[in-house]
Amino acid sequence: MKALVLEKQGALSLQDIDPPGALGPDDVRIAVHTVGICGSDVHYVTHGRIGGYVVEEPMVLGHEASGRVVEVGRNVTTLAPGDRVCMEPGVPDLTSRETRLGLYNVDRKVTFWATPPVHGCLTPEVTHPAAFTHRLPDSVSFAEGALVEPFAIGLQAATKAGIRPGDVAVVCGAGTIGVMVALAALAGGCSRVLLADPRADKLAVVSGYDGIEPVHLGAQDLPEAVRRATGGWGANILFEASGSAAAYDGLFDLLCPGGAAVLVGCPTGPVGLDVIAAQAKEARIETVFRYANIFDRALALIGSGKVNLKPLISAVYPFDDAVAAVRRAADGRPGDIKLMIRVAEDAEPTR
Amino acid sequence: MKALVLEKQGALSLQDIDPPGALGPDDVRIAVHTVGICGSDVHYVTHGRIGGYVVEEPMVLGHEASGRVVEVGRNVTTLAPGDRVCMEPGVPDLTSRETRLGLYNVDRKVTFWATPPVHGCLTPEVTHPAAFTHRLPDSVSFAEGALVEPFAIGLQAATKAGIRPGDVAVVCGAGTIGVMVALAALAGGCSRVLLADPRADKLAVVSGYDGIEPVHLGAQDLPEAVRRATGGWGANILFEASGSAAAYDGLFDLLCPGGAAVLVGCPTGPVGLDVIAAQAKEARIETVFRYANIFDRALALIGSGKVNLKPLISAVYPFDDAVAAVRRAADGRPGDIKLMIRVAEDAEPTR
Amino acid sequence: MKALVLEKQGALSLQDIDPPGALGPDDVRIAVHTVGICGSDVHYVTHGRIGGYVVEEPMVLGHEASGRVVEVGRNVTTLAPGDRVCMEPGVPDLTSRETRLGLYNVDRKVTFWATPPVHGCLTPEVTHPAAFTHRLPDSVSFAEGALVEPFAIGLQAATKAGIRPGDVAVVCGAGTIGVMVALAALAGGCSRVLLADPRADKLAVVSGYDGIEPVHLGAQDLPEAVRRATGGWGANILFEASGSAAAYDGLFDLLCPGGAAVLVGCPTGPVGLDVIAAQAKEARIETVFRYANIFDRALALIGSGKVNLKPLISAVYPFDDAVAAVRRAADGRPGDIKLMIRVAEDAEPTR
Amino acid sequence: MKALVLEKQGALSLQDIDPPGALGPDDVRIAVHTVGICGSDVHYVTHGRIGGYVVEEPMVLGHEASGRVVEVGRNVTTLAPGDRVCMEPGVPDLTSRETRLGLYNVDRKVTFWATPPVHGCLTPEVTHPAAFTHRLPDSVSFAEGALVEPFAIGLQAATKAGIRPGDVAVVCGAGTIGVMVALAALAGGCSRVLLADPRADKLAVVSGYDGIEPVHLGAQDLPEAVRRATGGWGANILFEASGSAAAYDGLFDLLCPGGAAVLVGCPTGPVGLDVIAAQAKEARIETVFRYANIFDRALALIGSGKVNLKPLISAVYPFDDAVAAVRRAADGRPGDIKLMIRVAEDAEPTR
Repeated sequence: MKALVLEKQGALSLQDIDPPGALGPDDVRIAVHTVGICGSDVHYVTHGRIGGYVVEEPMVLGHEASGRVVEVGRNVTTLAPGDRVCMEPGVPDLTSRETRLGLYNVDRKVTFWATPPVHGCLTPEVTHPAAFTHRLPDSVSFAEGALVEPFAIGLQAATKAGIRPGDVAVVCGAGTIGVMVALAALAGGCSRVLLADPRADKLAVVSGYDGIEPVHLGAQDLPEAVRRATGGWGANILFEASGSAAAYDGLFDLLCPGGAAVLVGCPTGPVGLDVIAAQAKEARIETVFRYANIFDRALALIGSGKVNLKPLISAVYPFDDAVAAVRRAADGRPGDIKLMIRVAEDAEPTR
Repeated sequence: MKALVLEKQGALSLQDIDPPGALGPDDVRIAVHTVGICGSDVHYVTHGRIGGYVVEEPMVLGHEASGRVVEVGRNVTTLAPGDRVCMEPGVPDLTSRETRLGLYNVDRKVTFWATPPVHGCLTPEVTHPAAFTHRLPDSVSFAEGALVEPFAIGLQAATKAGIRPGDVAVVCGAGTIGVMVALAALAGGCSRVLLADPRADKLAVVSGYDGIEPVHLGAQDLPEAVRRATGGWGANILFEASGSAAAYDGLFDLLCPGGAAVLVGCPTGPVGLDVIAAQAKEARIETVFRYANIFDRALALIGSGKVNLKPLISAVYPFDDAVAAVRRAADGRPGDIKLMIRVAEDAEPTR
Repeated sequence: MKALVLEKQGALSLQDIDPPGALGPDDVRIAVHTVGICGSDVHYVTHGRIGGYVVEEPMVLGHEASGRVVEVGRNVTTLAPGDRVCMEPGVPDLTSRETRLGLYNVDRKVTFWATPPVHGCLTPEVTHPAAFTHRLPDSVSFAEGALVEPFAIGLQAATKAGIRPGDVAVVCGAGTIGVMVALAALAGGCSRVLLADPRADKLAVVSGYDGIEPVHLGAQDLPEAVRRATGGWGANILFEASGSAAAYDGLFDLLCPGGAAVLVGCPTGPVGLDVIAAQAKEARIETVFRYANIFDRALALIGSGKVNLKPLISAVYPFDDAVAAVRRAADGRPGDIKLMIRVAEDAEPTR
Repeated sequence: MKALVLEKQGALSLQDIDPPGALGPDDVRIAVHTVGICGSDVHYVTHGRIGGYVVEEPMVLGHEASGRVVEVGRNVTTLAPGDRVCMEPGVPDLTSRETRLGLYNVDRKVTFWATPPVHGCLTPEVTHPAAFTHRLPDSVSFAEGALVEPFAIGLQAATKAGIRPGDVAVVCGAGTIGVMVALAALAGGCSRVLLADPRADKLAVVSGYDGIEPVHLGAQDLPEAVRRATGGWGANILFEASGSAAAYDGLFDLLCPGGAAVLVGCPTGPVGLDVIAAQAKEARIETVFRYANIFDRALALIGSGKVNLKPLISAVYPFDDAVAAVRRAADGRPGDIKLMIRVAEDAEPTR
């Protein structure tokens, strides 16, 4: 069975791997259809590691995936062969204390696709627990299904923010995650979202979304934009999605009294926190790690048409061109948001 | 100064009243522009009372109002003459414990327009505390400004619901408040809202809103509609906006485990609560009384275009025809949602 | 292996049953030490059913239990032979949506000890999932360990109440659960708890607890007691633990603006809910069903000495006298709170 | 009228000042009884400033006060002459948006006793809004009443923590505020509180409180103490009350998954925040600024005997020795927690 395998830093190729073994009673077998390329996939290729996670043996890439169920384990009642699905790439220990609390994303024993030494899903067939496999509404394409994973991060952030209807939000950073956060915050109850980034090409992506207002850092003054948008009161919520330490300078000046900062981006080291400024507004700070119990909500929002992810799909490559797709992602072509690989042979019918 | 005065049950007419007195230091003087007719106005006309509130002396009607500031008290810094505004009709005691807690809507000492013996605002000029007077965004018309008050009730319900992004909601009752709740729930983060009512003409009003799905009670089965919309899981939130005791039968069958019921409608007596059914899902129940700290959020949602109230304006009458407007509201013409009275002489420019 | 078996309504005896089978990989084998007698055990004996749960085949009673681990499954790392433990009697489906959300108590597929047709634990040895088996602190006796289950219901109620430090609470009903709720509410942050019941003998049990103030219904006026305790403001939280429909009359008069009612008791039919009275205070209503993620918190409170359950142990019977113990519980001797059966042969050392 | 006046840095003396003017309609006149000396009073004496607040004109010190009402304004119904009271030193603008939201502590227009240029209350008579004056329960002495203000900060922290009953907390810093936080967290629902400080003399103060466990930094390892107290799970809540930047090193290692850090201490500059470590546990961070709607809760806890502040009163000086009292506070005598000045001539009867 063919798979997109990273042997070590820089050594990426399509190779034969063993097919998955016998199907467990709570699992389903899935014919993978489309897989999105994540920044983490690219980072493993270019650096061979992310923090303490090091590629020491060949590893299949890919964790943003959709597909079709082809077989179900004997205990499975929620899915049937033929179902179009997307998958949560992280599978926790169901017996852990974190999982029992509903916080399975922070379970220390989670296994996560394409995080060494766990194989990812850029291969024609995978098995996966039914509990972490979600049926796609008819209105959601396989390509959109593969976007549920990154959107789920944005939606986890919007959920933890505790948005109250009509809130004004600021999102710092217009990378894929920043855009996902902005869409989730808007769908999740905000009246307006200011999306701030120094790169105009990234901001151009959201020009078609009513309610998301780009702020071109450098050319525009973010504090002034927030004051204008809120009559001087400040934003109710600030999402930090840039991962830049500089974003923490003056962060609490952007917030209203009692506002919240939600930290999604991953800085490479400690950042400077102005405790006094946070206290003066009794700001709340939330942190985000992946997602838990979010895929069904994400699918409800995409399926109802309230969230439109289609403009974020920059290109879909056939599986045979998978290496080229990852190279393009590594190059960071201006205007690219999400590149995808269609593992299935059948092109998806146009919807 | 002319005013729409209810002398006693059934005795409604335009009469001369004394203009408001000297302006307090924290107040503003407002030229009233447009006033919506509320079910409570009609009820005072037809019954002379609502519960313990009895019309014993002539009372000016009207509490859903917009206008233009013409003078500000000496302490006022947030508003200036010329500002287009809408007003919260309830003014609490600022020193009360409820108000200090931020719960000024349940302050027992609140005074509320057109609630005996307090005069309403269907008259060309009123004075009002600046703290409860809100500037309209340029994109919001006076007629929409007069709709902020009923929308605020819906938004208070959506806020107390604690919507998490992507929730599916059911609203029972498609009267003005039910429609406002549905719009607020959708804007406030729900992926879909099922709006249930036995009257098809009421449901027709929301046909133009994506995401609000009418359920014609009698013709359609609400539990089945909820099952279909949620894959059998149940709705996350049920808003009871009909005020009907019958709506409480089987109410918790519609909810998902851990779901919430939000009680907005006002039944005329005790209703039957199935405690065991609620416990089996550990359902939460919230109750709603008017609104607090909601007008600014309402204006943010209307001003950004996320909530469109224009289709709910059924007709606008000139002030001289105010009595006819109230009569039409009392008749309950099919398809009518909100009738309004333009107190100002100048017609509003088309936007 | 001996067990306390209910064959059908009224037919209770010690009988031989098969010992538990092979140990699953995530399970532990436990030598049962002490088991409390619950009202539900008694109800099955006297009525043969509770609602739709009917004793149709012989069933072992008992679900409030402590014991000692004697063997652990191969995946178990959190417990070891010799550990003193207590057990959650309800085991959910770990793959269900409710469980993933952390709401495993409302999982529709839960199996629960001594709920037909599931056997209980009044027998010398049981197997149980390690994830629902909790180590006792050294300071907690087996008898106290068997009280964790009913205390957990009180603590679930106190947790769902969302107590803010210093709140004043009222508990209606001084049965075992009412007393547990009162203790949990006090330990959980309340400054004072008024415990109301018409029976003086039940109220006598809490006379030794500082901070719990008995209100003898009939002799004392509860609304007046609440006014005095709160300076007229009303209680922050009312726990309904009597299951009596009469407790709902005037319930919201006892609450402060913005207060909460927590429904723990199980009425036999629908109760009358005064929606208007609840709305006037924007009261919140929470409902309670057993407990989830509570045993560890319960053990922390008992183990630290903050909660003292010892006065609630009315008598401990040897296993051979188990039938007599249940008979006494059915008789409802005045002053009895909790009767227990010591299944283990070794008496517990005095602590 | 005599007052303890700070003319400029270091220049502290008892001087004559003008008595307060006419009584406003919502105010009360209070004979000051006892006033606690706060670290901020001392800091103004020794440095002449705190941050941007500079003593540029003579200022009366003192803001932790109790006394007796001697006259009430014409609108006041909640208090009467003779009432024993304590006072919130911060008075917000009742019309501000922050105040309407219930967040009056972060109102930017608040005036606060003994914060330049506002006079404090170390003088025999003050006037104060009745809404911010709280009646003492009979069981609470004037000296305890003067401790309500610093305890309120601890209680605000415990309230914002969102303690769930049985939580284990860590408090970093055993200064007055740290001790207040520890007492509030314990009363507010925690099962145990670990109080960590490098100074043994500060920790000695809490030796008499069951449930508060001192951790002597330097001699003891805090992470190890937390592991032992929580079975390796981590603390549910960490209160940072030291104001030391070093406390932020490894802070999130002390927390359990989903835990919360509450920032009470005021560091002199930005601190290093390990975002990645916080995200790995999806930690929540709350910040604390004084208090709002807390005095009544504080008084409920002290009045019911659940919180005992008496051991924290190190010494009470007569008014004539006020300067000596402040000097002793500035010297920081080992074992001193709170020094007080009795302004009233009558010694308080022993209770």
